[in-house]
Amino acid sequence: MTTMKALIYSSTGQVSLVDYPKPTLRSPTDAIIRVTQTTICGSDLHILKGDVASCTPSRILGHEGVGVVDSVGSSVRSFRAGDRVLISCITQCATCTFCRRGMPSHCTSGGWMLGNQIDGTQAEFVRIPHAESSLFAIPESAATREGEAALVMLSDIFPTALECGVLNGKVSPGSTVAVVGAGPVGLAAVVTAQLYTPAVIIVVDVDDNRLSVAKSLGAQYTVNSKTHPDVAERVKALTEGGLGCNAVIEAVGIPATFELGQRILAPGGVLANVGVHGTKVDLFLEDLWSKNISITTKLVDTVSTPMLLRLVASGRLEPAKMITHRFKFSQMEEAYKTFGEAAKHNALKVLIEM
Amino acid sequence: MTTMKALIYSSTGQVSLVDYPKPTLRSPTDAIIRVTQTTICGSDLHILKGDVASCTPSRILGHEGVGVVDSVGSSVRSFRAGDRVLISCITQCATCTFCRRGMPSHCTSGGWMLGNQIDGTQAEFVRIPHAESSLFAIPESAATREGEAALVMLSDIFPTALECGVLNGKVSPGSTVAVVGAGPVGLAAVVTAQLYTPAVIIVVDVDDNRLSVAKSLGAQYTVNSKTHPDVAERVKALTEGGLGCNAVIEAVGIPATFELGQRILAPGGVLANVGVHGTKVDLFLEDLWSKNISITTKLVDTVSTPMLLRLVASGRLEPAKMITHRFKFSQMEEAYKTFGEAAKHNALKVLIEM
Amino acid sequence: MTTMKALIYSSTGQVSLVDYPKPTLRSPTDAIIRVTQTTICGSDLHILKGDVASCTPSRILGHEGVGVVDSVGSSVRSFRAGDRVLISCITQCATCTFCRRGMPSHCTSGGWMLGNQIDGTQAEFVRIPHAESSLFAIPESAATREGEAALVMLSDIFPTALECGVLNGKVSPGSTVAVVGAGPVGLAAVVTAQLYTPAVIIVVDVDDNRLSVAKSLGAQYTVNSKTHPDVAERVKALTEGGLGCNAVIEAVGIPATFELGQRILAPGGVLANVGVHGTKVDLFLEDLWSKNISITTKLVDTVSTPMLLRLVASGRLEPAKMITHRFKFSQMEEAYKTFGEAAKHNALKVLIEM
Amino acid sequence: MTTMKALIYSSTGQVSLVDYPKPTLRSPTDAIIRVTQTTICGSDLHILKGDVASCTPSRILGHEGVGVVDSVGSSVRSFRAGDRVLISCITQCATCTFCRRGMPSHCTSGGWMLGNQIDGTQAEFVRIPHAESSLFAIPESAATREGEAALVMLSDIFPTALECGVLNGKVSPGSTVAVVGAGPVGLAAVVTAQLYTPAVIIVVDVDDNRLSVAKSLGAQYTVNSKTHPDVAERVKALTEGGLGCNAVIEAVGIPATFELGQRILAPGGVLANVGVHGTKVDLFLEDLWSKNISITTKLVDTVSTPMLLRLVASGRLEPAKMITHRFKFSQMEEAYKTFGEAAKHNALKVLIEM
Repeated sequence: MTTMKALIYSSTGQVSLVDYPKPTLRSPTDAIIRVTQTTICGSDLHILKGDVASCTPSRILGHEGVGVVDSVGSSVRSFRAGDRVLISCITQCATCTFCRRGMPSHCTSGGWMLGNQIDGTQAEFVRIPHAESSLFAIPESAATREGEAALVMLSDIFPTALECGVLNGKVSPGSTVAVVGAGPVGLAAVVTAQLYTPAVIIVVDVDDNRLSVAKSLGAQYTVNSKTHPDVAERVKALTEGGLGCNAVIEAVGIPATFELGQRILAPGGVLANVGVHGTKVDLFLEDLWSKNISITTKLVDTVSTPMLLRLVASGRLEPAKMITHRFKFSQMEEAYKTFGEAAKHNALKVLIEM
Repeated sequence: MTTMKALIYSSTGQVSLVDYPKPTLRSPTDAIIRVTQTTICGSDLHILKGDVASCTPSRILGHEGVGVVDSVGSSVRSFRAGDRVLISCITQCATCTFCRRGMPSHCTSGGWMLGNQIDGTQAEFVRIPHAESSLFAIPESAATREGEAALVMLSDIFPTALECGVLNGKVSPGSTVAVVGAGPVGLAAVVTAQLYTPAVIIVVDVDDNRLSVAKSLGAQYTVNSKTHPDVAERVKALTEGGLGCNAVIEAVGIPATFELGQRILAPGGVLANVGVHGTKVDLFLEDLWSKNISITTKLVDTVSTPMLLRLVASGRLEPAKMITHRFKFSQMEEAYKTFGEAAKHNALKVLIEM
Repeated sequence: MTTMKALIYSSTGQVSLVDYPKPTLRSPTDAIIRVTQTTICGSDLHILKGDVASCTPSRILGHEGVGVVDSVGSSVRSFRAGDRVLISCITQCATCTFCRRGMPSHCTSGGWMLGNQIDGTQAEFVRIPHAESSLFAIPESAATREGEAALVMLSDIFPTALECGVLNGKVSPGSTVAVVGAGPVGLAAVVTAQLYTPAVIIVVDVDDNRLSVAKSLGAQYTVNSKTHPDVAERVKALTEGGLGCNAVIEAVGIPATFELGQRILAPGGVLANVGVHGTKVDLFLEDLWSKNISITTKLVDTVSTPMLLRLVASGRLEPAKMITHRFKFSQMEEAYKTFGEAAKHNALKVLIEM
Repeated sequence: MTTMKALIYSSTGQVSLVDYPKPTLRSPTDAIIRVTQTTICGSDLHILKGDVASCTPSRILGHEGVGVVDSVGSSVRSFRAGDRVLISCITQCATCTFCRRGMPSHCTSGGWMLGNQIDGTQAEFVRIPHAESSLFAIPESAATREGEAALVMLSDIFPTALECGVLNGKVSPGSTVAVVGAGPVGLAAVVTAQLYTPAVIIVVDVDDNRLSVAKSLGAQYTVNSKTHPDVAERVKALTEGGLGCNAVIEAVGIPATFELGQRILAPGGVLANVGVHGTKVDLFLEDLWSKNISITTKLVDTVSTPMLLRLVASGRLEPAKMITHRFKFSQMEEAYKTFGEAAKHNALKVLIEM
């Protein structure tokens, strides 16, 4: 077999399911993976809008996936054909300056490559560079617990929510946490924040369905920012002494939500940005300079993936809850449509099965 | 004696040396200190401009000082009349929520009180609330090493530079550090950064004299931002691989310098704000969202003061180097004039001796 | 009223309920608390055996308690008569070198004073030195959730289990944790470890009832060390790859359990000692020198108490589960008997209500 | 050329310089290095005594070295023939569980391999597995500053002293540090401790020459434990308030020194073990259980090597100071003799040049 089905970014706003040459090993450190599940990410939609300069038309999209090893390069020791693996959205060499510092997101020969700078996972097969460090073996028990399909949630959204939101936000027992934005990543932040037992989680969004999902996933309070007259006041009123939140996780990526984040932050708090921003924002340093706060940004490093897999295996994390829709790969264009109109379909993550 | 000499903020832009009632104990936790040395801070000049709403005319200014205990309230156990003490610029109860979390800057009955919300140290005597936790005993050896006078540098500028700049900036062995602004606090950041042995310190300022002082205090490189055509490019060119700085310490407090800070930050770096900002600034999240950076703000907590005193006592920190001018208290108005035109006089810190 | 009922350590192995002078304020920083609930701790039994040299006969015992403020010294600002408070087992000045470093257990004018160096809480009234920092206001909601009585579990065992065991043990999401000893503190470690979502908790004890309580409180596996032929092998077999535990919490205090702890520790793990040891133990450095492990000891600092109160208030911690028996204060001698024969009575903590 | 000169462990107590087959690439991740400098380590002497079971006779010894890349396997991207490299004493795959957690010392296909489980660096050529992560490029400026030869001190003793001693010991500005044992690693601890500006460094040894070197390298005080009647008392008398040391770095490896370490530790301190121990030691838990101390062990991970190279390059670390003797490779047997009788020859590290 030398061709395969693949979903490409054909032109602005357009995807196409096409026949495409099956990838082959190019380096001793590569692996070829037969994809069994994939999904669609908000970043894929950004690409379609032309927002991601590094991704040019006819690229196979997708940076999330679960699959089976098809073949490996001569220096790949940890994986062999037939192994079941989770594909990290971040390609990492493990040895450059940034990888050694725990920042594979900035790997000098990796980072966000898949479905962006190189062909991605929305295809029957995908080539994974630096396979030894960019793939994770799937523990038997993790697959059993949740169904292996659900693990595709660990390619990107769970480590993103945890690392960029919860860990950067220093969520800890007793914290007051606000999550601004209840999309898939925001909701994954609601779930992973609870690994550290905050006292209170408040979620802000414009969509009542998503807010109700947030509650079912463990939020105590929700605020609809479309209908509430003064969101910042409302959030602060829900916090101890009206002081604001210890951690604000911004999971939208527009100036309005980032500014809200600044206004609901308690002295000593952290505003952990997760959103992908396309424009500058106002930083109210005239208020914040003396408030002992931090603002953090991050492209996920996926260094937490082994821990997340362990939690799934022990039944303490249930990623399947994020999946609202399931499609076959042949329905890929429809899947994009559904995910693109998520609010209309009450969609969170769509699972694509090969 | 029931009156004393004191320097008050008389009206916008004006200070006056006046006769004033000597302070008395108001609470069992108070102490009255006979001030022996004080100094003038940039914040005092801000007050004169009317920038600090909490400080109203006829307030005695000053939040830095060294002195001798005159009397103590009934619950003060650690100090007695005659003890030589360092006055912290931050008044702290030690037991409120914020103090327990290591943030006395936000103490619910303290914070920056002296020379702001209550009368300060530019007087013959000053009342110190929460004396037990807001004063520090001066070790014999610290006084001997540097001259006790120099310890007044530990009331504010050294803990500020260290806590808000160096510690927030996570300066560590091998770091590349930029200090933007070579005023007294910026220079104290150059000195205290070296407690953690960075590989390189780069200092940016508009004044060649201050840049030359920065070099004498340990900076490797300096850039005059008034004369250099592209400061950000120049700073980055001085860093490993042109990647930028691991820590940028902003010690000016205007939009231009804060924006420069953002541009010279390496992936994974920290922009530690020390400057007092009076207006909002632009935050270039469209570039920074994926750079894994942090931005921090802080009003000094003076939790590092015992450690700084220990370093002075062991000869590893020499605060006297910051002092360029000495005045008698009767020359206080002249001292303000000199400090207000610092560049003209090549002034850093002015020491006032009673 | 100038006399009260109090439980004193009368002679080796003996306690007596006696009439005793009601305590009075001795310092402006004192408070007198009318005790409403107290309990008995393993350390009280140690005192009765003569193991605690600092505690001499005729001392009122007890370092745990909940009560109502009766009167306060002139410098106590945060509490007034009628306030409901939790008494910390650690008396802390908040300003000495050790308190400033977050170690009030070693406070130079505090530490474990109550029911040891000064009269304690097993009485109708107790004098609390350094009241401002050694008492904690009880949030309305905490009292409502669990019943105020249960909060007496936060005077000692919960902060001890959390600080000495869970935090020193660096328990984190996905950790494998062993708790050796399922007494009240060991069980509180099982509960508080879950604030950080370990993947697996294994509990070792000699008592099947306590092991079954451990399971009901969240342990996955239990091992009875009296009946199992090779406890260390069994524990390691329960861990990932047979490598051992990331955190071992030793909550017994004898050489055998501390040695077991060393044997079940994974490379990179922490052996967090909570037990009170009366004799030296063997440290197997010939095995451990290259295993990158840590061993920690700690007398509780109770710096986590505000956080624990917040978690009770938000319903995320249920200390009442530790209470198996309830007595009136007049039955105090019987309460000691029951607690002294805990295994026989399936007793964990006994609650004494005034 | 297919044979080379190599120094092998021939039998107990014996080394021999022999002809040996030149190593060849066995895996795509290997590199062959032409060694230009090597040195002898205390562990090599342990091997000769038969203390290291994993190292059997006819093994080429040596785990420290600087050299030139001779050839690389097909998957090695960062190095090419002719590159100048520093060889880490730890072989690391960079992707196993332990490597991902920052513990390459426990790499499942690496760790201390060289001169132990596989042939080492005391030869004209050496095969380095996992070359991509186990070699470090030598910055031009580092070679220039110190002479490239001195960088061989960064293969083992400097990262060992820093990671196992200084970092585990949490040395920080103002700390009081004791280093027990002034051999090469102990002295490297004296040097690297100063990266964090402790207030006081006290060194204990039996050899006056080494103690005098310790002073020249920055120690304030030294104590000769052979001649001083009460070493523990003497050390404590040199500390603030007689409380003991914040960090004790044990760099000997026998029960007496480890016990001394326990006795001179302040409450809240860390006893960081660096010594290689062959037998169990007494741990005085009856004293230590309530002292809030930590004891740490570690086989070096060499994760600090890039930082150390950066400090050498910037002139802030001078490893050449450790070198007391220089030999040619043909004098290797004499070099072993000199190093084996280090005290007699006032030897620290011996440099072997090819």
